[in-house]
Amino acid sequence: MSTHNAQGVTAPQGFTAAAAQAGIKPSGKPDMALVVNTGPRFDAAAVFTRNRVKASPVKLSQQAVADGSLRAVLYNSGNANACNGAQGDADARESQAYASAALGVDAGEVAVCSTGLIGELLEMDKVKGGVDALVPALGTDNGQAAADAILTTDLVRKEAVYSGEGFTVGAMGKGVGMMAPSLATMLVCITTDAQATPEALEVALRKATKVTFDTVDIDGSTSTNDTVIVMANGASGTTPRQEELDAAILHVCDSLARQMQADAEGVTKRVNITVTGTADDEQALNAARTLGRDNLFKCAMFGSDPNWGRTLAAVGMADAEMDPDKISVSFNGEAVCIDSTGTPGAREVDLSGADIDVLVDLGTGGPGKATVHTTDLSHDYVEINSAYSS
Amino acid sequence: MSTHNAQGVTAPQGFTAAAAQAGIKPSGKPDMALVVNTGPRFDAAAVFTRNRVKASPVKLSQQAVADGSLRAVLYNSGNANACNGAQGDADARESQAYASAALGVDAGEVAVCSTGLIGELLEMDKVKGGVDALVPALGTDNGQAAADAILTTDLVRKEAVYSGEGFTVGAMGKGVGMMAPSLATMLVCITTDAQATPEALEVALRKATKVTFDTVDIDGSTSTNDTVIVMANGASGTTPRQEELDAAILHVCDSLARQMQADAEGVTKRVNITVTGTADDEQALNAARTLGRDNLFKCAMFGSDPNWGRTLAAVGMADAEMDPDKISVSFNGEAVCIDSTGTPGAREVDLSGADIDVLVDLGTGGPGKATVHTTDLSHDYVEINSAYSS
Repeated sequence: MSTHNAQGVTAPQGFTAAAAQAGIKPSGKPDMALVVNTGPRFDAAAVFTRNRVKASPVKLSQQAVADGSLRAVLYNSGNANACNGAQGDADARESQAYASAALGVDAGEVAVCSTGLIGELLEMDKVKGGVDALVPALGTDNGQAAADAILTTDLVRKEAVYSGEGFTVGAMGKGVGMMAPSLATMLVCITTDAQATPEALEVALRKATKVTFDTVDIDGSTSTNDTVIVMANGASGTTPRQEELDAAILHVCDSLARQMQADAEGVTKRVNITVTGTADDEQALNAARTLGRDNLFKCAMFGSDPNWGRTLAAVGMADAEMDPDKISVSFNGEAVCIDSTGTPGAREVDLSGADIDVLVDLGTGGPGKATVHTTDLSHDYVEINSAYSS
Repeated sequence: MSTHNAQGVTAPQGFTAAAAQAGIKPSGKPDMALVVNTGPRFDAAAVFTRNRVKASPVKLSQQAVADGSLRAVLYNSGNANACNGAQGDADARESQAYASAALGVDAGEVAVCSTGLIGELLEMDKVKGGVDALVPALGTDNGQAAADAILTTDLVRKEAVYSGEGFTVGAMGKGVGMMAPSLATMLVCITTDAQATPEALEVALRKATKVTFDTVDIDGSTSTNDTVIVMANGASGTTPRQEELDAAILHVCDSLARQMQADAEGVTKRVNITVTGTADDEQALNAARTLGRDNLFKCAMFGSDPNWGRTLAAVGMADAEMDPDKISVSFNGEAVCIDSTGTPGAREVDLSGADIDVLVDLGTGGPGKATVHTTDLSHDYVEINSAYSS
């Protein structure tokens, strides 16, 4: 078993990809990508945003993958095609129809994913021009180019590869803000030449997303467009056991989730919050998420300030049982608060590095435990997000 | 009925106040205050933070007011006396005992309120020195000085006065951050020379806080120290009807809540969010609060960006029934989104002023309605809160 980060989605056998500059992004950067499964099998599974306000491509792709089969995914960045009403739905369908015709497959075999600005209509002439460029450019070397083309405010490309016993899993993803996924997040495409049923893929994907993307919480905001798709073609001839498949999917999801955390909008600190001492894991997750979303705590992390007082104030509002007099907190392994009281020297703990591990025990003695991956709240976050659409 | 903003807590008959520089704040600014009810009656009621992590003075003041009677409230700023364990509880009790002895009243007749840094022990010699200075300085002209002495990062003093039929209500408050009150918020002291039972005061206070302080949500963070106390002495000889009392208490709470919103940490915009079209008011409040806490939305407000897309993405995660295809949004009365789709010219709506009114209808046709008062998320918020304790 080895891991490298090159050629993400085209690392497994039997997948081709392409990227194009369709002119959707004003910057002129690549903004469309196509990932095609060339078979022999076309098993697929996906998870989508739980936001009630779903982008048109999410609704369409949910239908496309419902039968457990996909042959291709069409991506565009720069425009989310969200909140565009009936015209948005029609544009998503037209994109799907145009791409499937160009590929010579049924429309229902093509998923579409969009990311970018909400509330702007897709310019369909540009989308069609993009598809016209993508299809003849499909190749087994273009995973990296596709990974570049789906980025928005991401600063770095995000890919992952897992080499299993006789099979390979590849993946690409994007996501730097509006990240508080539930069930799924952002845009992620996972490919594998393993032979696996849609049911096996779905099991592996849900297990993996629960402990990876679902525990990344950058700003408490959940996107309208979150989509994670996995496609398997059996080209390797290997049928991994479910546990092998689970481990492989988990590996690439975990890698992409950490890449997203590291590249989050305006991040200067990666903050990993673990909560223990609750009745169950769900309560621990609630408390970790409450802390990870607390702006005062996040500003303190930006300031390298070991502010355990704000930590207690934040978890005190969490939907979790706790003993308010028995809470303990450590930063990077140094105890700063024991029995809800500061330790000597707690304010001198050095948090100047880029990584901060926070451990909070809520003092009930229960076995609950969970970790959430978040970031600090920085000037750059405000700058990026106050200027994004203007 | 007239309103002015002078002499807050000493505007009603029979209340004295004082302020002192006790040296708790490193800046040397006034940091202690005392408000005394000189009778003839000593009726009182209070509401406190719902945070499970409660500061020592909160726990002590809850006991003091439990019998419906208070003669004085001792305030200090610069130190919250929160998360200091048994020593914090002992220090709060010693402050109460020292002040009550100096005033010649029972300890259980004095409430204590602290605000400032969490997790630092009170320096009791300074507190006692402060009390020694406060008691001889008590006077009927010192409401404004007391209001100054309870401020922390507040930029402006916050007072309110209501002149009713034969009685007066005065108030002072502080609060600029860690503001997402539930039941009560921040430090507020309300005084009145009306004659009113503790039960009548409690009814009026709970009604008022529900629609004033409870709807201010600056950063989703709820303090460990929130305390709102009302004291009534009957010195005017007037016993207002419950509705008159309700209206008077509501008036000063509403005034202070708006002053807090306007002075919130780093605020450049006052954002008032009203949600309609839900099954009931509680769902509308949930949705308004979810939007008011969404960092992407708040950054857009900072950027004067009429970003209705982020508005829909945020309310889509709210715990409220909605029709995802029938959501409408207006900014400052201009419709920017109808049936979940942008209107022509939506992006050109001018939000450059300091006040932004946001109206969101969730499209179910239900009668639910609620308003939340929040602010933008600015560079200054990050700056203030990353440097606060260092």
